[in-house]
Amino acid sequence: MSRAERAQMAMMLEVSAYPKPGNVDRCHDYADTRLEHFLASTILVRPVFDAAERNGGRVGRLIREAVLATNNHSGGNTHFGAFILLFPLVLGGDIEGAKAVVAGTDLEDAIDFYAAFGLTEVRMGKSDDLDVNDPASVDAIRERGMTLLDIMAYSADRDMVAREWTNGFRLTRRCADLLHAHGPGRQAIVASFLDLLASVPDTFIAKKHGMEVAEKTMRCAAGVRAGDRDLAAFDAECIEAGINPGSIADIIIAGIYVALGEGWQWDS
Amino acid sequence: MSRAERAQMAMMLEVSAYPKPGNVDRCHDYADTRLEHFLASTILVRPVFDAAERNGGRVGRLIREAVLATNNHSGGNTHFGAFILLFPLVLGGDIEGAKAVVAGTDLEDAIDFYAAFGLTEVRMGKSDDLDVNDPASVDAIRERGMTLLDIMAYSADRDMVAREWTNGFRLTRRCADLLHAHGPGRQAIVASFLDLLASVPDTFIAKKHGMEVAEKTMRCAAGVRAGDRDLAAFDAECIEAGINPGSIADIIIAGIYVALGEGWQWDS
Repeated sequence: MSRAERAQMAMMLEVSAYPKPGNVDRCHDYADTRLEHFLASTILVRPVFDAAERNGGRVGRLIREAVLATNNHSGGNTHFGAFILLFPLVLGGDIEGAKAVVAGTDLEDAIDFYAAFGLTEVRMGKSDDLDVNDPASVDAIRERGMTLLDIMAYSADRDMVAREWTNGFRLTRRCADLLHAHGPGRQAIVASFLDLLASVPDTFIAKKHGMEVAEKTMRCAAGVRAGDRDLAAFDAECIEAGINPGSIADIIIAGIYVALGEGWQWDS
Repeated sequence: MSRAERAQMAMMLEVSAYPKPGNVDRCHDYADTRLEHFLASTILVRPVFDAAERNGGRVGRLIREAVLATNNHSGGNTHFGAFILLFPLVLGGDIEGAKAVVAGTDLEDAIDFYAAFGLTEVRMGKSDDLDVNDPASVDAIRERGMTLLDIMAYSADRDMVAREWTNGFRLTRRCADLLHAHGPGRQAIVASFLDLLASVPDTFIAKKHGMEVAEKTMRCAAGVRAGDRDLAAFDAECIEAGINPGSIADIIIAGIYVALGEGWQWDS
């Protein structure tokens, strides 16, 4: 399997695994974003993964091209956070390689990334002074000479995907380790998802609903893991309230990519 | 969307649509063949579709390469019939082009096709004297100078996929027309599937269970379309008995490919 295929397989396996409380999966859609949108993006991003694997390239530009290739359907942004993790991994091969890729980013990567961000509806914190919809932000980035790694460091305390760039892909590594520990097949994906959800507040939930809700969701997931709560009921509560752990899903995708490269078997 | 992407989207949309009585879909797997197997094949066949679109090539060899690219998981053959329809369509662009492609096949296509067939577990009729597991069959094909179109004509009376090659892709055309008539979105796929299932016996069912079962399934589907039978109950009966209309699923994929090329909207 090529790196590009491994990245696509990770995207496909993540969205197919069920039940994943609150997220689009085989059992439920959201009104505007459905399983087919996630799978369409998985298919349509292929040429950009192929280009990254064959020719290398700048990670900022690749993320922008991936968003352009996948936002031509009505499902909106499906994989922006996943692309932030996958492109360093595809360019670098594995986590060690990805760390070198993110360390080598520059101002042009940052500018391309902002252009990509502007094409999505990803929510940033309200207090953010580098608002991606504000053209002045790009000027500010230029003036400060910020690299894309600087941008991620700037966002790291409130965005767990950005944080992966700054801490050596720690949760990605943990997710891959969890997959190995849980064994082959899709149930390992659900178990690893719950393990992460039970141990760290999802920052996508925090941005949308506040940190209290993110922490409450984490405690509920821990209750499911401890056998004190029913998984199906927890799932239904999340869906009802629109609480979707989207950042942990992104990290799961990156973790599956890494685990597949280390011999983890999806097919059993 | 490139032709290759349209073919992949058709494969993805077909398997995601639900409920499709008796087949793997979003709601059910078979023990040995699951949703992920169909989606993995959809991803892994991409380089072969790309090659066909960019460089052309012989349809027999392309089908063989597609089977090789997609049979490295435990789900067995997922799309052999679909490939028989899709490669002429991708090479030719549309049905008119596909008709020219199949008319231009030769002995080498037939031999490659037999090699591909030998890699699958697709069932042929018991009375078949061109058994794909019998090396003497290839000698017989050589002696007779049969083209791949001749092979399809030979199988046409008991295989509705082969029949498409010989009658100008008639059911593929009807499926595309049904999709246009049912309107945009995935419900049109389910409705078109039921329409076909209600009007023609599925030859995959006939090979596996006999023509009587295929015809009974057709009548049941007609009952669902008439409102006399419950769709979910019919679905459960098919699954219970292992009655899966696999050939109609192949034709649905080809029909979606054609309809997408004519502007049918999957995304609504």
